[in-house]
Amino acid sequence: MSLTNSSPLEVAKAASISSRGLAILPTKARNDALTAIHHALQESKETIQAANAKDLELATKSAEEGELSQSVLKRLDLGRKGKWEDMLQGILDVRDLEDPVNKITLKTRLDDGLTLERVSCPIGVLLIIFEARPEVIANIASLAIKSGNAAILKGGKETTLSFQAISQTISNALTNTLVPNNSIQLLITRDVVASLLDLDKHIDLVIPRGSNELVRYIQNNTRIPVLGHADGLCSIYIHQDAENDMAVKILLDAKLDYPAACNAVETLLIDEAAHSTILPEVASALLKRGVSLRCDAPSKAALSSSLPKSQADTLQEATEEDYTTEFLAPILAIKTIPTPPDASPSTSCSLAIAHISAHSSKHTDAIITSSKEIAEQFQSGVDSACVFWNTSTRMADGMRFGFGTEVGISTNKIHARGPVGLEGLMIYKYRVKGTGQVAGEYGVGGKHWKHERLPLQG
Amino acid sequence: MSLTNSSPLEVAKAASISSRGLAILPTKARNDALTAIHHALQESKETIQAANAKDLELATKSAEEGELSQSVLKRLDLGRKGKWEDMLQGILDVRDLEDPVNKITLKTRLDDGLTLERVSCPIGVLLIIFEARPEVIANIASLAIKSGNAAILKGGKETTLSFQAISQTISNALTNTLVPNNSIQLLITRDVVASLLDLDKHIDLVIPRGSNELVRYIQNNTRIPVLGHADGLCSIYIHQDAENDMAVKILLDAKLDYPAACNAVETLLIDEAAHSTILPEVASALLKRGVSLRCDAPSKAALSSSLPKSQADTLQEATEEDYTTEFLAPILAIKTIPTPPDASPSTSCSLAIAHISAHSSKHTDAIITSSKEIAEQFQSGVDSACVFWNTSTRMADGMRFGFGTEVGISTNKIHARGPVGLEGLMIYKYRVKGTGQVAGEYGVGGKHWKHERLPLQG
Repeated sequence: MSLTNSSPLEVAKAASISSRGLAILPTKARNDALTAIHHALQESKETIQAANAKDLELATKSAEEGELSQSVLKRLDLGRKGKWEDMLQGILDVRDLEDPVNKITLKTRLDDGLTLERVSCPIGVLLIIFEARPEVIANIASLAIKSGNAAILKGGKETTLSFQAISQTISNALTNTLVPNNSIQLLITRDVVASLLDLDKHIDLVIPRGSNELVRYIQNNTRIPVLGHADGLCSIYIHQDAENDMAVKILLDAKLDYPAACNAVETLLIDEAAHSTILPEVASALLKRGVSLRCDAPSKAALSSSLPKSQADTLQEATEEDYTTEFLAPILAIKTIPTPPDASPSTSCSLAIAHISAHSSKHTDAIITSSKEIAEQFQSGVDSACVFWNTSTRMADGMRFGFGTEVGISTNKIHARGPVGLEGLMIYKYRVKGTGQVAGEYGVGGKHWKHERLPLQG
Repeated sequence: MSLTNSSPLEVAKAASISSRGLAILPTKARNDALTAIHHALQESKETIQAANAKDLELATKSAEEGELSQSVLKRLDLGRKGKWEDMLQGILDVRDLEDPVNKITLKTRLDDGLTLERVSCPIGVLLIIFEARPEVIANIASLAIKSGNAAILKGGKETTLSFQAISQTISNALTNTLVPNNSIQLLITRDVVASLLDLDKHIDLVIPRGSNELVRYIQNNTRIPVLGHADGLCSIYIHQDAENDMAVKILLDAKLDYPAACNAVETLLIDEAAHSTILPEVASALLKRGVSLRCDAPSKAALSSSLPKSQADTLQEATEEDYTTEFLAPILAIKTIPTPPDASPSTSCSLAIAHISAHSSKHTDAIITSSKEIAEQFQSGVDSACVFWNTSTRMADGMRFGFGTEVGISTNKIHARGPVGLEGLMIYKYRVKGTGQVAGEYGVGGKHWKHERLPLQG
């Protein structure tokens, strides 16, 4: 690991060369490096926390001057309860995961003495651009080393001192390991992002971790594939047969467990048939916890007649724009799904799916229903990375999914979707071992292909 | 399937809507559609061949006027031996492959009554832009329908009549199937490529099939992910312990089986220690078959003293540019790998890998060696989609790999690499089935994650 102010091109070339050495290191060498990083961070806790406190001091000043939001402050603070411990534990969790490198995922006898293997291998060079969270350095460095990928990290200016302290610690730790020096590089030069995004010859994947604006800027300014998401516009659909208690519990969690998260719910879809049976209880619970409800006309009418006046008076009218807005705040847009008296429940579900198709960012959408058939219809029909039944959208998370940690959540339609852990940092190569066979020998009048699937071990 | 001159945006929106219907069709419905296409094409053979003959007539005229190359003419001709039969058989081969949709690839008990599944699903909408090969329509339509993806096809102007005839046939065949009408659309409007490449909201993946220029134009002009390759700069490294006969056989096939193919060899790397033992025989065989050899100084000197004068006189001097040129013609660049007397064979192999790292397009590279260790070093160290041992680079092909057919060969570092069949057209979604669990219940002082891997069936 090196802390560098070299030019972006030099950095990228060095990463590319190191990536080849890292890619062929045995499992133990990569795991030992993670152990070394863990120990070093543990021993440098005071130094790092002191640097973080300084960052925080400067940021608090900026916040007071209105130049920085409170949520950035929160993300910056490594002293928050459990954050440091989680960061350190994350390194060990990643170390203890199964090695994703060199796994054979397909083996075919093409002909006698001619075997095809598909073998997992690292992608190569990752560029990670993040904003305010200093613990991302440790997360991503762990995932990169474990998966055999070189990484270039570029942090936001608010984290400068924490970034340098963590980086220096990791850098020192890695010098005594077999991981090539430039496998993890931390860029402290300013204004280099645009140049980095131009280096598609040397960088294989960009992972942005930050605001929608950051992600969109990156998506629009590079030919390098970008893994991540700009928007997290998540919906929950309450079907008419949902259980009240479950609906209340899930909505409260999805909206309030962490309103600024990408997997928080932003739109509630509810069957018209549930306007008097489920909606009042859900709305009342949300209002009591300070959530602003932006309702379409039918749901507002229904709630106005069922809620106490003090609550009913706080209801707002939804605009069309509210259904495509990621509030990242205690605000929820409510949309009624019509339930004509002669229509089947699956018609309502189809209408909910259609709303999601038209408005969702394809991140995470959930249904609350007692019916297995309706759930199946919803989970097949909704084209999002995560489609949940009777649970909160907040479950969309690499740690919760058992991936150790994550490099981010992807709304891409190719490569990796949803929470991305180690597997999303892998690709494969095809190896063929022959004994002199050539293509021209096969085909009309020649030798025949065997194409026999072989067991994957060995 | 519809043959359309609607606007690109209308086409893309229609594709997106159809893709949702296609994605949830059962296996049988998709297979039946392929059977219907196969029968319809069989019955329309005469009409289609007649249309193709007219395309060919116009193209021959263009070729005579120097506006079209002979290789395009060859690719255009559906009457070439075996081509029609291969096209029809390809449809049935794809139909008979295992259904790639709805396969569960990960199943985890997150907690009691809370299960995570990763399920394969189609990517969505594919845009295929091809040039001169009319049979691509049938290949791609089959792969798209089988994998549950909608496809928009845009062909080159040389294939207009064949394209319309095949399209009309497929279109008629599909009207009696369950596949939604706009799942496969064929665009006959001119000058729409730029507009299509702008529709990243509706199109999920672009697959270009044509010249390097076409692929590069597309890569540089869209935010949509592009699957494919511009260059196929393939190398073969003859290690000093290779068997002469095998080296000759593999080089002849790799260079001459189809010189215009992306998997033909363009650079021969050869150990200095093999200059007098293997190189003369290989060079002589290639020269006899009309291949021009562009040699670096050491290999030219060695060959000049060992080959008969008539052959030696034809040797050309290689420039640095020759090692990054995809000749697509019977020309081969030769580069010597130094073998210092005290160095181990693995040192030579490392130098060959370094040359490939610096020059290869990461498509397909091969080694010829008798040593398992040297082969392992090469196959681990070379970062290309296909890395072969003792076989020809021409083996890099979806049909030869047993994938039925292919949408193309990818040199991307993410999603799909090498020959891409059905699997490369799939992505996955995460489904969670819960019983009311929410994220806020877990963590410090709360419930614990179980994260138990479950068997994949059911």
